[in-house]
Formats: sequence, structure tokens, C-alpha cells
Amino acid sequence: MVVGEISQERNLLIIGGGPGGYSAAIRGAQLGLSITLIEQADIGGVCLNEGCIPSKIVTHAAAKRTEITHLQELGIGIPENQFDFKKLLSYKDRVINQLRSGVESLCKENKIEMIRGKVTFLATDKIGVENGHQFDIYEFQQVIIATGSTAVMPPFLIEKGERILLPHELFAIEEVPDHLIVRGSDYIALEAASSFAALGAKVSVVIENKADFPFDESVNKELSRLFKKRKIKVHKELQFISTNETKDGITMTFLTDKNVEETICGSHLFVSGTRIPNLEPLGISRFGIDLTDEGFIKVDGNMQTSLPAIYAIGDVTEGPMLAIKAIKQGKAAVASIAGQQTEVDLTFMPVVAHTIPPAVSVGLTEQSAREYGLVVRASQFALGSNGYATLSGKKDGFIKVISDATTEIIQGIHMIGEGAIELSGSFVQLLEMAAREEDLKFPLYAHPGISEGFLEAVEGMVGQAIHAAPVKEKRQSIIFK
Amino acid sequence: MVVGEISQERNLLIIGGGPGGYSAAIRGAQLGLSITLIEQADIGGVCLNEGCIPSKIVTHAAAKRTEITHLQELGIGIPENQFDFKKLLSYKDRVINQLRSGVESLCKENKIEMIRGKVTFLATDKIGVENGHQFDIYEFQQVIIATGSTAVMPPFLIEKGERILLPHELFAIEEVPDHLIVRGSDYIALEAASSFAALGAKVSVVIENKADFPFDESVNKELSRLFKKRKIKVHKELQFISTNETKDGITMTFLTDKNVEETICGSHLFVSGTRIPNLEPLGISRFGIDLTDEGFIKVDGNMQTSLPAIYAIGDVTEGPMLAIKAIKQGKAAVASIAGQQTEVDLTFMPVVAHTIPPAVSVGLTEQSAREYGLVVRASQFALGSNGYATLSGKKDGFIKVISDATTEIIQGIHMIGEGAIELSGSFVQLLEMAAREEDLKFPLYAHPGISEGFLEAVEGMVGQAIHAAPVKEKRQSIIFK
Repeated sequence: MVVGEISQERNLLIIGGGPGGYSAAIRGAQLGLSITLIEQADIGGVCLNEGCIPSKIVTHAAAKRTEITHLQELGIGIPENQFDFKKLLSYKDRVINQLRSGVESLCKENKIEMIRGKVTFLATDKIGVENGHQFDIYEFQQVIIATGSTAVMPPFLIEKGERILLPHELFAIEEVPDHLIVRGSDYIALEAASSFAALGAKVSVVIENKADFPFDESVNKELSRLFKKRKIKVHKELQFISTNETKDGITMTFLTDKNVEETICGSHLFVSGTRIPNLEPLGISRFGIDLTDEGFIKVDGNMQTSLPAIYAIGDVTEGPMLAIKAIKQGKAAVASIAGQQTEVDLTFMPVVAHTIPPAVSVGLTEQSAREYGLVVRASQFALGSNGYATLSGKKDGFIKVISDATTEIIQGIHMIGEGAIELSGSFVQLLEMAAREEDLKFPLYAHPGISEGFLEAVEGMVGQAIHAAPVKEKRQSIIFK
Repeated sequence: MVVGEISQERNLLIIGGGPGGYSAAIRGAQLGLSITLIEQADIGGVCLNEGCIPSKIVTHAAAKRTEITHLQELGIGIPENQFDFKKLLSYKDRVINQLRSGVESLCKENKIEMIRGKVTFLATDKIGVENGHQFDIYEFQQVIIATGSTAVMPPFLIEKGERILLPHELFAIEEVPDHLIVRGSDYIALEAASSFAALGAKVSVVIENKADFPFDESVNKELSRLFKKRKIKVHKELQFISTNETKDGITMTFLTDKNVEETICGSHLFVSGTRIPNLEPLGISRFGIDLTDEGFIKVDGNMQTSLPAIYAIGDVTEGPMLAIKAIKQGKAAVASIAGQQTEVDLTFMPVVAHTIPPAVSVGLTEQSAREYGLVVRASQFALGSNGYATLSGKKDGFIKVISDATTEIIQGIHMIGEGAIELSGSFVQLLEMAAREEDLKFPLYAHPGISEGFLEAVEGMVGQAIHAAPVKEKRQSIIFK
């Protein structure tokens, strides 16, 4: 190993080139900071290379594949069963390469110094970077730890063979599995189940104990209905007994909610749900950085850790392990370092699953609003009653709006249906701005359009949706409760 | 003819069952009014039966057809040239019937009395309704005129044969035209050009004098680029000399902006643009109702005309001839009749065209903001730099945001790109709520998603879009001008 003779000086180091790290780097450069970004693998991190992007390419293709019947009724002739998964894989590689080289170019254009290698902390102001036979030492004024997290196996699965897949493995799989068993109920599990079913796999979902889908109850119910319609079998309230992987498949044995022992045999098992922060290899804990009980780095509102020169963002900190959190925190960290006031508020973080159709929850669910003791107004409008959804073959699902009847301030917006991802940004904006019912009712919405369904969801709060059956007195009294 | 012996009494009559009329009827019923809705043809009016809905089915199918290349790269095998227009027509009929019978059911469920027939005013409180051999007389307390408008030929086209098509004829055409000449630059003309080109027609657009596409200049430019890419030839700044229709085709001769005489031969000519209010047959003018110079009924903020018992909404009143205006006015009219306070404000009416990809403008364009003397901040973000747009094959277009740099209040939002229709509702909400730049920058947006592009458009106002090349000093100074 060649060790750099003297330690080099840098201003702001960012360790980890995932979405949080590279967004922080670029924003930092925009704010006039001198930035060094260190990444041991590919720029873009898990999100771009193994997670969000590849999974969304698969969910997107799957959604498109379910449109075939609709395309046929439009006169666009498609032989039902032609699907070439290999082509999708090469599309995926192409898009990932393109996005990655886009980020690399942006880093260059923003004059961000890029260093490849594996980081170890040598002091609270000094790190070593190992790259093959090279070992360089850098002193820094500030550092941002943005090393992300790694998916790990749940405790009940000790041995992991080739047929047990973690998220990054599932979305890199080379063939559509014959029978995919999906373990979990989070958005990744739902996306996996929904999209691989659409791509031709038989899919079974197994969910432990009291866990359920992560949305408003009505959305969960509609998702269950659609899963059933697509022949995705969901087994809930299970207790796992054993899992056995052989050369030919996977066998899972569990206890159902009726205390009956059941067995599922599949070709593959997808395991979603557990990730641990990538901290161990950094060796930062021995310098006395404050950690939470779960082993995440503690940060304040500026993303500063208990060691003043050290900041942390993304999956190494507490909270949801999502790119959007990392990006927001990354921007906040550099803003704070650049002397600006900053604030990160995760209250209205959208919960999103690219199922078919996609589902989104922002703000309070109806259940949680009631639990908070609000006088709840809840109204949902079926997309099947919306002209544009109908003509464009997107009739499944609905938009649901929750408000506080006392103030008429919107408390939650939930949607399952085509367009939910596009609309989710608007849901967050409205909640952040404390929009009132009138703010949603007053505007003019393009006709025909999905937004009219949004309007009708709000109009429905007082029994005034145009394209919904008249509200009976009894039901009305429930709504206004 | 059988004349009803005595005149019958009614509370509120609504003449015309288009979107304005039937929305007014249903809302009126929701407010406890007793409603009679009179329609001479099909419920849903021009919009549902001949206009918005059939045209959107065609634009939707056309947009889907342009996705074929993308589907192929996703591995979904589609033979390029299979397209069956007849199938699309029967889909169109099916959807229209379904939506129409939906509206009919809603009227029934809301206990709205439905009368078929042609209305003539007999007094300011009395109408006659003719239906075949039957003629009935109704006295009313209030009436809402919602009879809409009819497309007419422009002055330079005196004779109209089968190859000259008005909007309702184009979207009911039985075969894709070989070479469609589109006259006009409004949203209907743009939709016709864009969709029939995608469905296989050769398309030429001819635009008179100084007219241009109806969006922000940047959107117009992008639309022109995409038209060119799709081989749609646009001839601007013309003066028509003559149009000649034969058995085999259409020949148009015009003078170009360079004063050169040119001729286009096509199979069909689509004429967009001129509509007149359907007032003449009502015979209302002889009762001294106030009309504008252009022949529209004058209404106040409650949609009340100069004759107190008579209200008017939609295309018979001044302003844009759009369903959204009629719907809003219809709701306002019945609210006012029911004694509620009401307000219709068309300032932030979205301008929408379902081109491929769709285009939307809400609020001030960059040009108009400058003309108003605002210190303009304008920023646009290319969808090609958005991860989700990239992976889903929707890279054309951009989102553009205009704000007043002094107050940072958003003044206009413009988009051309997939998802624009879905997002348009959010644009209107934000402008109505006088959102500031910070209101768009603070929220957390689903990653990956198109909304992130919206965020980056706003971040770009101060040179802080993450996925855009660094802003050079010179350009920055222009932005902040």
C-alpha cells in the first residue's frame, strides 16, 4: 500500500455520493463552498444504481404492460404475450448509466473534487481514503457523513442462498421469477408484488403479525382489492416458523391468524424491510459521536452531530430511509455550513408506492385524525366517476381528502390511482401551506382532467360532488361527525 | 301540434344540459332547489358528445400510439404499424354513452326533472318547449340559460363541403385523413394537428396574420420544435387568398409573410376558432335582455342578466368558451339563487392543450409579466434532466415558473410535457393561494417524480437547481433583471 506522505487539506468533505451526498455537494458548490465528494462505488448510491431508479424502471414497465388491454381497445394492436424481460434489463442499464453520467457531469461542471475510495476516520478532523493500493489522508474543516444504509436479512432468516433476494438483488434479477414470495408490507414489498405480477410472475405476499399496508385504511383496502383482482395472494397476520431454500425453490412454513400451520412453495423469496446504517466501516464511533439507541447518528436541526465539525444526513440518521429525506437534509447541511438559516420538517413527507395503480399518502390518515381528536371530515371520490380517468382507461382508485371540520384546514390527502405520483407534490404543497377546503374548491380545473376528481373529493365533504350519488342523510351525519 | 292547455309552473328551469347546465342542475338539487333541466339533444351537450370528450379520446389514443417506441424499448413487443381506427371509434362511442348515461343517472338520483325539447321564450317568466308534435308552456321563478355555442365557418369560407370539417365533425371522422390541413392556432387546432399526425395523417397547420400558439413563448417554441420533429409543417403569418374544395381534396392558396403566393393541397381542411352563442332560437333578445356588442348575454357576478329572473352561464356569456367556465358559472348561479354568496374569478383559468406532450399555461407568461412592469424572475427546468421523466420515456418539454422578484410571489406556471394535465390543477391552486417561491421549495417531493422537476424550476430562479448546469454570471444577471 502506498500511503500519501502528508495529509492534504480540504474545506468540506462529503462522504458518500448517493442522492443526499451529491445533492449536498452540488448545492454546496452553488453556495460557494469548496467541496470534495468521496464515493467508494458508483455515484448515485443505492438509490440510483440499485434502488429507487432500477425499481421504478421495473414498476414503470410493469404498469405499461397492464395497459395492453386498454391499448387494444384504443385500436393499438398488441399481441398479448410478447414481453422480453432481457430488453427491459438493457433499457434499465442504459437509463442508469445515463443518469449516473449526468450526475458525474454535474459534479464536474460544479467544480466538485471527486475522490474514489473507502473512508476511515483517523481523528475528528482527519480521514483516510483507501483506493486499491493507495491510501491518502485528508484533514477537513467540516465533513458530511452520507454513507447510507445496507439491506440486511431479518433475524428469522439466518442463511441466505441465491433464491432469497434483498431489494438490490430483486431489481437486478435476470429473469422474471416463476413464483415470487414477497415478505413485507412496506412500499418496496408492494411495488415488488405489484410489478412482478404484472410482468408474469405468480406472486404471494406474506405479512407478519399486525403489520399492514402503509397507507390510509381506505387506500389499503383498495390496494387489497386490486391485488386480489390481479391474483396476488396476500397472507396476513402470520408467524413464521421456518424457511427452507433448496436448489429448486423456497418453502416457507408459518402459522396463520387461525393458528393453522401453512406452507408456501415458491421459486424465490423477496425480503424487504430491514436496513442498517453504514457506519461500522467508518470507525467514527470510537471518537465519541453520539448515537441513538438504534445506532443512528444523532443530529440537530442543522444536521450537525455531537462533534461540531461532523454533519450527517440520510440513512445514517434517524427517520425514514428515503432519498427525499437525504436530499432535503443534504441541502440543509450545506446551507447551514454556508451560514444560512435552514429547516427540515418531515411532517408532510409523502408515502409513495409505485404499485399499479400507484398509491400516495400525505398528512393524517382518517384513522390518525380521529385518534388526534379532530372533528374529521373525510370524503373520497372514485376515479371511475371522473371523465378523464374513464376515457383514458384509469378508472381504478380514488382521491380522499381529510380535513378538520372546525377550521376546514386540510389534514391529509390520499390517492390510489393513475396520476397519484404526479399529484403527490401538490398534496404536500397544499398541506405545507395549510390549505383550507375553499382553497381547493375555488380554482378552475382543466376539463376534462383528473384534478376535477380532486375538486369533487373536497366538494364531497359537504355532499356537493357533482359526479357522485346524492348523499343520504344518514351517511351525511357520519361524514360530519 | 298539441299545445299544452295551461302553462305549468316550475321553480328553477335550466335550459341546456351541457356541463354548465347539468352541473348547475345537480348543485342546485344539492342546495335544495327544485330543478327542471331542458335539453333538446343529448345530455352532456357539445362537450360530452361532440367536443371535449371525443377529442380527448382521440388525443389520448394518439398519445398512446406515440409511446410504441418506448414500449418496445421496455420489452413490450408491438408491431409498429398496427392501428385500427374503427376500433378507436367504437371505444369512443362506448365511453361517450357510458359518461352520458352516468350523467343521466345522476340527474335522476338528484330528482331533477328532465324535459326534452326546444325552448322559445314567450315572456320574461314563460317559455314554450317544443318536442315533435308537443308544445308545452312553463312559467318559472328563475331560469338559467345554458344553451352553449355553435361552431361556424370563418368569413373567408363561404361554401362548406364534406372535406371542410368543423370541430365536432373532425372528432367524429370515420377514417384518418390522408393530409389534414389545420387552420388555426388555438388549443383545438393544436390538438387536432398533434393527434392526427400521431394517428398517421400528414398534417399542415396554417395560421393567419400575427396569430401564434396560445402559451408562454417558451412553450410555443418547444411545441414548434416538437411539431417539426413529428413532421407537422406549420405555416405562419399567412393571408388566405382562396380555398377550393373538390371531390378529391382541398386546395388552399395564401400569401406568405414574404408576400409569395403558395398553395397547399390536402385531403381535408379542419377549421377551428369561431363559435357563436346559441341565442337566436331562444327569442330572448326581443324581451330586451342586455347583450354585449359581440352578441353575448351580459351577466353580473351572480350570473344574473339585466332581466332579474333570468340567469346565463357558459358560452352564451362573454369570455372563454370553455366547459370549465360554464361549470363554475353554473354552480355560482344556483348558489346565488339559493341565497349563498358566490364568486367567479377567471384570472387563473388554465390554458390547456392535449398535444403530445400536453401543454398548460396558468397565470402570467414571462412576456406579460414584463409588460406589467414586474421585476420578473423566470426559470425553466427541462424534463430531460428529471430522473422520473427520463426513466419513463417522457423527456420532452419543461416546467417554467415566473415570479415577481420583489415579493417572490409566483405569477405564472407553464408546462409542456407528460403529466402537465395532472399537474395543472396544482398550478391553479398555487396561484390562487398566492404561493411564494418558498412554498414550492420547502415541501418534500416524492423521489423519483416529476414534481422534483417543478421544485428544480423554482430552485433555478436563484441558480440552485441541482440537476441543471451551473448558472453563468451573465445568464444569472438576465434572470434577476
